[in-house]
Order: sequence, then structure tokens, then C-alpha cells
Amino acid sequence: MAQVRNKQVVLRDHVTGFPKESDMNIVETTITLNLPQASNDVLLKNLYISCDPYMRILMNKVDVFEGLPTYTPASPLTGFGVAKVVESGHPDYKKGDIVSSFTKWEEYSLVPSTQIFCKIEHIDVPLSYYTGILGMAGLTAYVGLFEFGTPKKGENVFVSAASGAVGQLVGQFAKLSGCYVVGSAGSKEKVDLLKNKLGFDEAFNYKEELDLNAALKRYFPEGIDIYFENVGGKTLDAVLLNLRVNARIPVCGMISQYNLIEPEGVTNLTNIIFKQVHMQGFLVPSYYHLYPKFLEYLLPHIREGKVVYVEDIAEGLENGPKALVGLYSGRNVGKQVIAIARE
Amino acid sequence: MAQVRNKQVVLRDHVTGFPKESDMNIVETTITLNLPQASNDVLLKNLYISCDPYMRILMNKVDVFEGLPTYTPASPLTGFGVAKVVESGHPDYKKGDIVSSFTKWEEYSLVPSTQIFCKIEHIDVPLSYYTGILGMAGLTAYVGLFEFGTPKKGENVFVSAASGAVGQLVGQFAKLSGCYVVGSAGSKEKVDLLKNKLGFDEAFNYKEELDLNAALKRYFPEGIDIYFENVGGKTLDAVLLNLRVNARIPVCGMISQYNLIEPEGVTNLTNIIFKQVHMQGFLVPSYYHLYPKFLEYLLPHIREGKVVYVEDIAEGLENGPKALVGLYSGRNVGKQVIAIARE
Repeated sequence: MAQVRNKQVVLRDHVTGFPKESDMNIVETTITLNLPQASNDVLLKNLYISCDPYMRILMNKVDVFEGLPTYTPASPLTGFGVAKVVESGHPDYKKGDIVSSFTKWEEYSLVPSTQIFCKIEHIDVPLSYYTGILGMAGLTAYVGLFEFGTPKKGENVFVSAASGAVGQLVGQFAKLSGCYVVGSAGSKEKVDLLKNKLGFDEAFNYKEELDLNAALKRYFPEGIDIYFENVGGKTLDAVLLNLRVNARIPVCGMISQYNLIEPEGVTNLTNIIFKQVHMQGFLVPSYYHLYPKFLEYLLPHIREGKVVYVEDIAEGLENGPKALVGLYSGRNVGKQVIAIARE
Repeated sequence: MAQVRNKQVVLRDHVTGFPKESDMNIVETTITLNLPQASNDVLLKNLYISCDPYMRILMNKVDVFEGLPTYTPASPLTGFGVAKVVESGHPDYKKGDIVSSFTKWEEYSLVPSTQIFCKIEHIDVPLSYYTGILGMAGLTAYVGLFEFGTPKKGENVFVSAASGAVGQLVGQFAKLSGCYVVGSAGSKEKVDLLKNKLGFDEAFNYKEELDLNAALKRYFPEGIDIYFENVGGKTLDAVLLNLRVNARIPVCGMISQYNLIEPEGVTNLTNIIFKQVHMQGFLVPSYYHLYPKFLEYLLPHIREGKVVYVEDIAEGLENGPKALVGLYSGRNVGKQVIAIARE
């Protein structure tokens, strides 16, 4: 049986503080491109792999997500990806199918069929989209904004990490709902993207604002109805001073805190009472059942060009560590993807 | 027309930091016990007045509550109370009625009828109850626990400030819902009350716990489903480390923070994401419409002795400042009330 090379991105050891490229190794292993006999598993050729902020948390030693253990040192990272079925022991999948799946950071992966999220039916859009706008990031934006943000026409929406995988969609969805939308991001290039390509009403570079509270008062003189939380820390603290009554805060992530050994203290939480705020943390796996409804909402918008998506595609697994580490300094512009193979 | 004495508790000036008795003055004014001609207002004789933690926030210079401005220096404090109608220019109220009303800290108050919360119909229970268990504190406990905590049989509930006006009811309501209930309070006397009179499963003195996280792990080895938030700060931070998936945090108050010029920083907020937590701040005036349903639930329990209530009644307006200030050091045992007159 033919063995082929199977390059992997392997975590060296659990990480403390900011992750570095050197926390990961590129290793070459081999794999036999046949299923073991009587196996129900599925053999995948990974095409695109998603870089996601939550992965930093899996580099810690201690588990925090129920059902999603931290990474094992000397093993490949795991994450979401788009893959082609090489061989299948499960009746739902056959050779040549394109699937969206929980997979590993390697060229080929043997996965239990339960790890496959779905067969990709609509291939008139770029396949890489299924790691982002049509994948977990998209569903996250959809669930967070519509289930918990419940935007109403004319409401004021603030999105942090607004040009990121999730933020750029939250802003566009909120605009489609008739809201006034402002985003914050970490560079002039990103701010320009938000205003000129992604249709945000306003955007600002949080690194250039000495006083985030003052910045928010400038953009939201009447206060914020929905804050889509991607970053935590100082931004959340400033937002808490600028909320309207009955504000909603879908809490998707707090990327500014994941690498800190001592997280920042948030001091303005009494405003949760004063403004009767609904704050809701969520993890997208609890909302997989909404994926068909989400596709039905979003695919037409993509096809009609009413929702666009900015991707930052790194070529090859070798560039994976750099791409992943870059998330935490905001090096990426738009959704960070790694292209392993095009087909 | 006969003028009578009208003693008042007057705020001297806006307050910074912890309030002191000397921030308030007792002054003697006079009042004519007749309504001005053609007035629609209602003249009240105040019987019992409620001391509530939120009142500290109204002593600040800057407004935070919509529709409830901060106190005016040299004017009497305002708050909830039980009163007898002396004279009425409004058809809904007549002389001799007992009402629950937003009133002033004085012997007699002339109030617009819109400030009257309701006519008290059930007078087989102590009238002072309408400042607490059957007033705003009771409705707050009911709304917070049932609307936002949504307790299910067998769930784990933690209540801070557990022997206070609201906390003692939250614990009893949660027990009636079949939950395991633990409370924290600030003295041995209060802990004994919680365990021996109020039916909590467990209780601890937070002042004696060097490590609140460890204390919570001891009482909740499987984590907390509902945290009824009355105090904020360090307690909230420890709770965030001990939540179960889909935990709910009704945020009623954060009394530990109201007197701080620099509020404490809460550092463990990422757990809101990891545990998919629903945190909901609320103010009871938004839920007045639930009052009839609340009475229907609670009155039978009180009459049957299934829910009890601990009150701390100070006698006379002169003792009002001391009683109010005492809330912020936990001097009160149970609901703090001021009795101005018995009838």
C-alpha cells in the first residue's frame, strides 16, 4: 500500500503568555491512503484550515471547554477545515465529496465520521469560505447578532475586532438589519476596509485612541444598544460606560485576554444593573442546528454581492504557525485561513 | 389651618466614598395637613420607610438611573415606604387607605398619585412587609430568580448578601423550587440565620474565607447553575471560576462597589464565554406588571409559614441615617426598615 508524506503542525508544549511560532514544529510523517479494514472512519485530504482565536485557549494546560480538551504536546493541532474525502467507511460520505470538518493541522487526516460537520453542497462560492463566512465564524456572527443581539432598525451597534473573521460579518448583518454600525480595529488599513469595503458607518483605530470612553462617546452620543464582544478587557470597560437601557452584549470572544497571565480587571460592571444589560456568552457548537437556516439567509446575500468577505490566506502548512500566532497581534487582515491544497 | 411638625432626613451634600451619618441632617419643618385646593395629589402619613442599597447611588452627583435623578442637597431623601392616606385629591385613594408608595424620608409627604405604587389590600400580614418581602425587595427576588435565574429542580444556587432583604427570599424561593442553595453573609449570626431559620442548605461567612474560590469549590464541587448577584467585586470574580455550562447570573446589585471611588477589577470574565453564561442586569421598576402574580405566589407561602422574613426595624426617623449607612457595612440583620409611625 502506497504511503505518502503527511506534513503536520505539532504543538511542542503547553503555552504560557503569547504564543510564538517556535511553540509549534513542522514535522513530516507518512500515512497510508487506505482505510483500515471495516473502519467506519473517513480519510480526508485537508484543503483549507481555519485559524481561530479560541485555539490559544487549547494550548493551555487546563481544560476550560466542555467536550474540547486542550492540545496534546507533540501531537498535531486540531481545528476546523475544508477537506476532500479520499476514502470513506461511512455511508454518508463518498470519495470526492467536499466536507466541512473538525480535522487536524496536517495534509491528510483520518477522522471519525462524527467529526464531520457537513457535506458541502454549494460549491459555486470559494471553498475557503467554508472555514469562515460559511463556517464557524459566519455561524458565530449570525447566532450572536440575531439570537442574542436581536437588532432592531435604527439601533446602535458597536463591533470590536471588526475586520476579523466574525466582526466583519456582524457589521454587515447589522447594516442589513437597518442599524447604525461602528467598528474598531487595530490599523489604518483595517479601518479603511471597514468604511470603504465592508459598509460600516464609522470605524476607528483603537490603538490611536488614548481614551476609549471618549472615542465611544464621539461615535455613540446616544449610547450603544448592541455591543458584539470579541476582545474583552479595556474595550469592554469603556463600552460599559456607554450603554443604553436594555443593551445586549453577545460575548463571542475576549481575544485581548487569552494570552495574559493576569487578565485585565473590568471595573464598570455596575452598569449592567443600571442599564439592565443582557450579556450572553456562547459557543457556536451549541447552535449547529441553526446552520441550515443560516445558509439560507446568507448564500443569497453572497451571490448577490450584498455581503462580502475579506480573507487572509496563508499558503502551505509551513506558514500555519506564523498565521496562527499573528491572530494575537492582529497581523491578519480579515479571516485567517491556511491553504494546504487547492483540490 | 393646623400646621403640624414634619421631621425630615435631609441630604447635606453629594457623597463620595462610604456614606456617613453626618452626611444627613434631621430637620424639623412644618406642614399643613390639607391638600391645596383642586389638587390631584395625595397627602400621606409615612409609617414605614425602606432602606435600600441603591440609595447610595442617588447620593452621587451624576445620574445613572433613567428617570430617577440623584438626590438634591438640602432636600429630604426619597424612597419606598408604606403610608396612610391623610387626604386625597385622586379618586383611586381615600382617607385611611394604606398604600405602598414612592415617598420621602419625612413624617408627612404630599405626593403626586403617580408615585403611589398600589393600595395595600392584604393587611393580615405586618404592614412593614410591604417595604420588603411584599415590596420591591420581594419583587426583585422573584423577578431575578424566576425570570432570569429560571431555577430547575436539583440545580445549584449561590446567593450573596444572602441574609439581606432580597437574598433571604431568593434562597427560600430557590429551595421551594427544589434547588441546592448556599448563601454567603458577613457574620456568624447571619450564617446561623441562613442555616437555621431561612432553610439554606449551607452558608458561610465570606469575611472568614481567605480564598473565596476555594470556598465555592467546597460548597459547589460540581459548580454553580445560578448565581444571584447582590455584591459584585471579588465575590463575582470567584463565582466566575465556579460556573457550570449555561449558568445564569441575575444581577440585582453590586453593593460592594457602590462606595468605591475605584471599583474593583473583575478578571475572570472569559468564563462567560467558556461556560456560555447568561448575565442579566435588571431594575425592578421594569417589572411592576408582575406584582399581582408575585403576590399570588407569595402570600399563601407567608400565611402558611413556608416563607419567613427577617426584618431589622429601626425606630424613628432620627435613627434613619444610622440605619441607611449601616447597610454598607452589613450592620443590619435582615431587611432594614425604619418605623416612623405604627398607624
